[in-house]
Amino acid sequence: MKAHIISIGDEILIGQIINSNSAWIGEKLSEINIEVVSISVVGDDEKQIKQEFQRTFDANDLVIVTGGLGPTHDDVTRKCVVDFFKTELVLDEDVLNDVKKFFEVRNRSLTKINEDQALVPKIATPIRNSRGTAPGFWIEKDNKIFVVMPGVPFEMKGMMESFVLPRLEEMNSEEKIILRKNLLTTGIPESYLYEKLGNIDELMDGNKLAFLPNQFGVKMRLNVEGRSKEEAQNKLDEIEQRIRSLVGRYIYGKDDEQLEEVIAKLMIDRGMKLAVAESCTGGLICSRITNVSGSSQFFERGVITYSNAAKVELLHVQEDAIQKYGAVSLEVCRQMAEGVKAISGIDIGIAVTGILGPSGATPTKPVGLVYIGLCDDKICTAKEFHFGDNRLLNKDRASQAALEMLRRHLLGIPYDD
Amino acid sequence: MKAHIISIGDEILIGQIINSNSAWIGEKLSEINIEVVSISVVGDDEKQIKQEFQRTFDANDLVIVTGGLGPTHDDVTRKCVVDFFKTELVLDEDVLNDVKKFFEVRNRSLTKINEDQALVPKIATPIRNSRGTAPGFWIEKDNKIFVVMPGVPFEMKGMMESFVLPRLEEMNSEEKIILRKNLLTTGIPESYLYEKLGNIDELMDGNKLAFLPNQFGVKMRLNVEGRSKEEAQNKLDEIEQRIRSLVGRYIYGKDDEQLEEVIAKLMIDRGMKLAVAESCTGGLICSRITNVSGSSQFFERGVITYSNAAKVELLHVQEDAIQKYGAVSLEVCRQMAEGVKAISGIDIGIAVTGILGPSGATPTKPVGLVYIGLCDDKICTAKEFHFGDNRLLNKDRASQAALEMLRRHLLGIPYDD
Repeated sequence: MKAHIISIGDEILIGQIINSNSAWIGEKLSEINIEVVSISVVGDDEKQIKQEFQRTFDANDLVIVTGGLGPTHDDVTRKCVVDFFKTELVLDEDVLNDVKKFFEVRNRSLTKINEDQALVPKIATPIRNSRGTAPGFWIEKDNKIFVVMPGVPFEMKGMMESFVLPRLEEMNSEEKIILRKNLLTTGIPESYLYEKLGNIDELMDGNKLAFLPNQFGVKMRLNVEGRSKEEAQNKLDEIEQRIRSLVGRYIYGKDDEQLEEVIAKLMIDRGMKLAVAESCTGGLICSRITNVSGSSQFFERGVITYSNAAKVELLHVQEDAIQKYGAVSLEVCRQMAEGVKAISGIDIGIAVTGILGPSGATPTKPVGLVYIGLCDDKICTAKEFHFGDNRLLNKDRASQAALEMLRRHLLGIPYDD
Repeated sequence: MKAHIISIGDEILIGQIINSNSAWIGEKLSEINIEVVSISVVGDDEKQIKQEFQRTFDANDLVIVTGGLGPTHDDVTRKCVVDFFKTELVLDEDVLNDVKKFFEVRNRSLTKINEDQALVPKIATPIRNSRGTAPGFWIEKDNKIFVVMPGVPFEMKGMMESFVLPRLEEMNSEEKIILRKNLLTTGIPESYLYEKLGNIDELMDGNKLAFLPNQFGVKMRLNVEGRSKEEAQNKLDEIEQRIRSLVGRYIYGKDDEQLEEVIAKLMIDRGMKLAVAESCTGGLICSRITNVSGSSQFFERGVITYSNAAKVELLHVQEDAIQKYGAVSLEVCRQMAEGVKAISGIDIGIAVTGILGPSGATPTKPVGLVYIGLCDDKICTAKEFHFGDNRLLNKDRASQAALEMLRRHLLGIPYDD
């Protein structure tokens, strides 16, 4: 079943709201193996809306429309549905009761424009709205399905979950099963990853692999087809195994996992405690770690030593070392990691110092230069990194590299490239 | 000038990423009075992409395409551009130099597929990419404009700001002027703000005012029209003045300003230094402060005292107080602020302790309970807040409240509601 999603509303076109409805609907349809082939957004304009209905209903088996169903003058979707399907509005008693009850519960009196919301296109099965006043419409014609819902995400989601998705799932009993999985890598550029994987067609055996890079790493999205769930799962497992054998060391997680969640599991499993010393990342590493509920089980403390005085006073970094090598240096970074471990009396200390830009560069130390240090009871080391020139992205990159250094250390994977 | 925006990528169709690029581009085009009439999303499929190019280039004066320009096999946009415009790829020396430099700076060697990124469609003016390796394309044909950029938001935004928007603005000079301004408030709920503003129609004099709430506060978006830039600007100034006279104390900034930037200006202007002690916010306040370039001028240090031991050792909080009142209490919070100021020897210390959830609540201390403390040379105080039950949103809210408490303190505005 091929599907198209239409969002209606000027506010989306001018970027006042982000089209999160389409993303949510796309995800839910994918989960029941309905293929979303395209998405569109049009303004609150009758002519344009009707053209879009025509174009997309011609080309697809399913069209899902959201927005423009409210009671005010700029909501024209219902009128467009009536015109497009050459039908008329009729009063639906159930919907009228819903609307009346909605106002009763809220101790508000019903207005004429709210009452009019109980008028639904004759051709449609109304989709009751337990979370608002505007009903949705389910229309079947020419073996195709046309669904219209309000644009308010909470109302739309209620209708999708209670009415639309169950019906669609029942109707869409296809042969082909598609399974998806994301493998998350970091510390390796997209082009290197691509080369290490060799012949992609051979590797994927006719299935899809996409590379999605951002400042935290490269996401590999696997799309695997099978005639049954078992077949697809077996294929997916086999392909994942092959990929892991080639680039497994760079893979820190899967799907929506965050690196800090992976770290939390590893540390808690091992019963180990962590302390963090940050200079240039300014608290981002600690903040990411404490995003994880339960992080107090392994995260003991952090210090943000932005000034040299703080590095000396809190972490016992030698003033000599700062004089000789500079605050951004391998040696000071190593001492920071050593210091934060020592003052906390715990298992592992990590530290970051660097120049994230736009200012702060020197002739020998460019923007993007970052050192990351790690100390446990056996080793005390630091490593040099080079990132870009955007301050905020560099903070993300440096925090990710620090957490990845910790992950590889915990798992005994070398971090040498 | 009528515009259409196309985003390319399977990951948007299946809802793995939200189409924030289109929203951002839509907003920027609106600002220079270019009307975005529609938006679409298509998958990584050559046939579909070329069809969409044809359909939208026929119907509009401007088409902006993002996505599918990466170096790997699933990035097919460039090939589609070549086919659609019946042109060929030629090597661009400037772009090749950009790509080489990009890898040099990062101490990485150039691969063949990266080198190939310097091949651009002959019909296009390449748009240089200072933030990545794939160039964009600017194409003019039949008095229409066709722009192609990478889907990585940071790279796309760089190209839009440095190249695309200035060119478009020059080409597009219209009669009616619309000016937009955002006034940013925090520490007051939407409904209270609304009531304090009184009669909105009278206040806005036929112009638009929208309220956009999120966890950082409520954004008021003003849309003001005029027949000339001067007329619109005068109207906007007058309306802003009226709004500020009613709710000015809650307004911390405008447009895209962050509260941490406002704080940075205030602190640097006054030549004052800040130290921060965080428990529940786990480093987020320090991280936000250090997002601002130049924050080292006023931010001295931060400590993330997640454990009680750290509170006692680093901040000299009395163990008695923790025993008697609990780590989440007005008294411990006050002592944390006092302690971080004392150990740093600077002007102001702020501190946060609380229960952000989902776990950690006690019969007397619910999830969402947060204390924020502030000490300078004259006062040492703490205040109780109640937020919601979502951990990450609570971190945002608590960090915002702490920064707002500091802003009002610096400006002598009471924080009593």
